[in-house]
Parts: sequence; C-alpha cells; structure tokens
Amino acid sequence: MSNKVEQRYSALVSKSGRDLKGDDTSKLLAELVVESGSYLLGLNRLELESKVPGKNYFMFSDESHEKTSRSVNRMLFIDDLDRKTIDRVMQCDVVGMTSEEITKIVYTCAISYCCAADILKSNDQKTPGTYFEILIGHIVSRTLNVNPEKQITVPTLDETVTLPTDFVFNLGFGKNRVHLPIKTSTRERVVQVWAHQRVLDGMHGVARFKGVLVAMAETNKQKDKTVVEVCLPNQWIAYQMYISQMFRVYYLDLPEKYNTLKDKYPFLQVKPFGDFFGEIEKIERSGVDA
Amino acid sequence: MSNKVEQRYSALVSKSGRDLKGDDTSKLLAELVVESGSYLLGLNRLELESKVPGKNYFMFSDESHEKTSRSVNRMLFIDDLDRKTIDRVMQCDVVGMTSEEITKIVYTCAISYCCAADILKSNDQKTPGTYFEILIGHIVSRTLNVNPEKQITVPTLDETVTLPTDFVFNLGFGKNRVHLPIKTSTRERVVQVWAHQRVLDGMHGVARFKGVLVAMAETNKQKDKTVVEVCLPNQWIAYQMYISQMFRVYYLDLPEKYNTLKDKYPFLQVKPFGDFFGEIEKIERSGVDA
Repeated sequence: MSNKVEQRYSALVSKSGRDLKGDDTSKLLAELVVESGSYLLGLNRLELESKVPGKNYFMFSDESHEKTSRSVNRMLFIDDLDRKTIDRVMQCDVVGMTSEEITKIVYTCAISYCCAADILKSNDQKTPGTYFEILIGHIVSRTLNVNPEKQITVPTLDETVTLPTDFVFNLGFGKNRVHLPIKTSTRERVVQVWAHQRVLDGMHGVARFKGVLVAMAETNKQKDKTVVEVCLPNQWIAYQMYISQMFRVYYLDLPEKYNTLKDKYPFLQVKPFGDFFGEIEKIERSGVDA
Repeated sequence: MSNKVEQRYSALVSKSGRDLKGDDTSKLLAELVVESGSYLLGLNRLELESKVPGKNYFMFSDESHEKTSRSVNRMLFIDDLDRKTIDRVMQCDVVGMTSEEITKIVYTCAISYCCAADILKSNDQKTPGTYFEILIGHIVSRTLNVNPEKQITVPTLDETVTLPTDFVFNLGFGKNRVHLPIKTSTRERVVQVWAHQRVLDGMHGVARFKGVLVAMAETNKQKDKTVVEVCLPNQWIAYQMYISQMFRVYYLDLPEKYNTLKDKYPFLQVKPFGDFFGEIEKIERSGVDA
C-alpha cells in the first residue's frame, strides 16, 4: 500500500510538470488522494489536546506509535470522501457546492497525502509542500484556464535577466496577471510573499499582478501533543501597509487571528479557500479594487 | 573542555542580553573564542575539495570522523590567534590594522565557535546563529556607542503596535538610524532583509534607517565533501531595484559573485567586513548618498 502512494506521487509530479491544469493531472491527483486515504485507514488515530479555541485536532500514527502525522482538523476532515466528489473538485465542477463544503473537500485532499507522507517518510517537508503546490496550482490553473509560469523576465536598461517566482498566470494581452504563492504554512517566511509581490509591482506597475496567497494551516503540534496556531497578525498588517498589497489570502484551516484582518485597516482579505470559486471574476478583473 | 565552551556560551548570551556593547561582553566573547580555539586544536582537520575558484576549505572532525564541522576558509582562518589581538578587535581598537587583517581576525573569531558547536552539538543551527549575531552586534554597537533595540513601534491611525526586528540603533534625536540584520548565511531567506528595510522606509521615510547587512559566508558543504558557494546575484539586483535600498552588505568570506555587484547598476555595495571600520562616518551621516 505504502509503495503505491509513493508511485502515484511520482507520477503526479511528472505529469503535472508538463500540464498542470490538464485532465491527466486531475485524474492522478484523485488517485493519489484515494490511495492516501486507504493507507490512512490502516493507521491509528490519536486525539490531540487543542489550544485553539473552537477547533479539535487528531493525528495518525503507525502501529508502533513511533511515527506520527501532522495534526488534522476534525471538523474539516471528511472520513468517507468518495471518488466522485474528489473528481468533481479536481475538475473544478463545484456547481451547487457551498464554500464550506469545498473547503472541507480540498482540506481532506490536501491533508490526506501530507499525513501519509509524514508516516511513510522521515522528516520530509519537501514532498508535502510540492504536493500542496500541485493540488492548489491545478485547481487555480484549471479555473483560470491557463497553465502558470515559474519564472519572470526582469527588463533592465542594461540587460534582461530572468528570476524564479511562485506561480504566475498570464490571462492574456492587456489583462492583469495573477501571482499565486502556495504554502502549507507561512510562519516568519511569509514576508517573502509581500516582497515578491513588491518586486512584481515595481517591475510592471502596482496591481498589474494580483497577489493571491493560498495556505493550508498554521497549526503547530508541540512535543507535549498539544496543538497551537502560530499567527503574526501585526506583522501581516505592517507588510500589507508598507511592502505591497495582497489581493486575497485563502486558507483551508483558517486561523481566527487572520480571519479578523479583513475587518480593520488595511482590510487584508483573508478567507476560507472555498470562497475562491465565487471570486474568480474579481481576481480576473483588471484594476486595484477588491 | 567541551563543557567549558558551552558554559562560556551561556554566560555570553546572558551578559550580552543586558549590555551588548559593554566591556563584559568583550571579555566573554574573547574567552569563548579562546576556549573554542583550544577545543578545535584537539580535533582532526580534513581537506575539502573546493569548487570555489581561488578559495580553499577544510573542516574539523572528531576522532571517530562521525561528526564534522562546517567548511573553513584556509586563507581567512588564523591558526595562532592570540588573546591580545582578539581583545583589541572585541574592543574595536583597530588602529593600524588593515581591512584584510580585521576581516581575518573576525572570521576566525566567528568560525571558531561555530565549528566547535558543529561538533559538540547535533544539528544545531541556532547557537551558531545567535553567537554570530552577538559577535557582530557587539562590534557594531561598541563602534556606534549605543546598544540596539530588537523591536520597533509602528504608528498607525488607529492603534500603536510593536514589531520584532533585527537590531536597530538610535543614533540620537534628528539623526538617521541603523538597521543591522546579521546572518551566518543568507540563501533565499535574504529577501527578508530588503522587505524589513522596506517596512522601515515606509514607516519613517526612505533612508531614515540605513540598512547594513552583515553575513559570514555562503559556502555549502555537500555530501561528497565538496564546497560550493550558493549565490543569487540576479535576485539581489531585483530586490535592490524594486523592494528597498540596502546601504551596505559586509561579508567575512565574501563571495566573488556578490563582490562584483558594486560595479554595475544598482551598484549594491558589498564589501569585506574589515571595511566597516573605515566607513563608520558614512553609516552615521544622514542622507541617502553613499
């Protein structure tokens, strides 16, 4: 079983690199989610003590209890997620689904492989991060109907240099573009997101690229088996005021401390990821208004 | 012997937190350098294959060859650094010393404890980083004759919030201030430096804080025992053009790819750390000119 998870992960990485928005990537993502779900069914589930008001978490562990997964939000994790529902979300066919339902489905798809990798591998931060980037990148590129680029050309008066970037989407001549950083969690590294947005604003004019950050969660499972959320709302306010303006931040497991940022200056719009499908027009529309 | 290194490190952290520029911190730094040097004398030295043109590196290892240190630049490491010389640099009494001599002495002081910690501890990135911040912070604060702060007040129209920062120095009413990030190596995390400078520029006006980054080296010891330098000069150019303008970058082991950045637009001034003592007036002088 474990081997199948790893095989399907490798197939997904290979295929998505050629056509992130394609049908084959949808299919491979769905297959990996199903395979990861089957693997998780054979593991133990252990309660965690949540220090996060209103949220409960558990983790998976192997027989020996030596290896444990990251924390899983009980309210967002769907135990019996069926293949048909997975396929619908991977194909962005979400008509009739609520934002809440979409968020739970995508959360379950995201966390299932991450937890499987936590147990199957040792200290592996890389493949969960890559997987999450492919999952969200697939959904967004399929919705925008264009594959992203991962580098950008910097025009200077002396020479032309190319820089690596997060995903950027070209929506067509004269249209705005989309800058899509994707992180399983942000912590103090989050300043990179605003800094890269600032470089894009500086090169091509403010808001020519609309910045959309997608993150999974800010949970931290501590040594004593308690779960906390690590949030830095004051830093986010300073970054949004002084470095650049992110258009949207979407979370699968949205921390309350970030949820309230949209209600006071500078009104940073942090929302559950399910809201994305209702805001595509706003993201595609040119101009700086929200 | 090993225990003495750790004891002196703890004493240094405690004392420097109360008075970074003080005589006691000078003394504790010198004692820790001497103790680390004695510890390193009992270790093996192994040649490394350098992939960096014009530079040679070795590493320390314990008897069993199980634990090895980071790479050490042979040309910068002084084998028989005497206490008197260490004391002079810790007290910023560098009259008659060349920039090159100062760089070598500070490099030796920096790398000695870092290598000792590499062998004495397991996977410890934190204490070498903290030590390097204390070492450079001490020299700079003693030179500027003021202790730094590690947080800054953000004035907003609605409320006042404080943010953690790298070291910032208040040179007095009406004068410019100094923003001093200190890193053993920078890698892709370096964008934080320009981003935090941008926040300071945004809050208090461009160049009210002069940004001075001090870094040790960009060497990376690979699994096959070769040493490479990891440099991202195109990124640095984009950050200096579009995020903010750092006034100086000083290195102990200066990578050639960054050394050449001062010769072309945007003329980012990257220099060996020994040059710092000859540029104090420029750093203290108000205004944006170099």
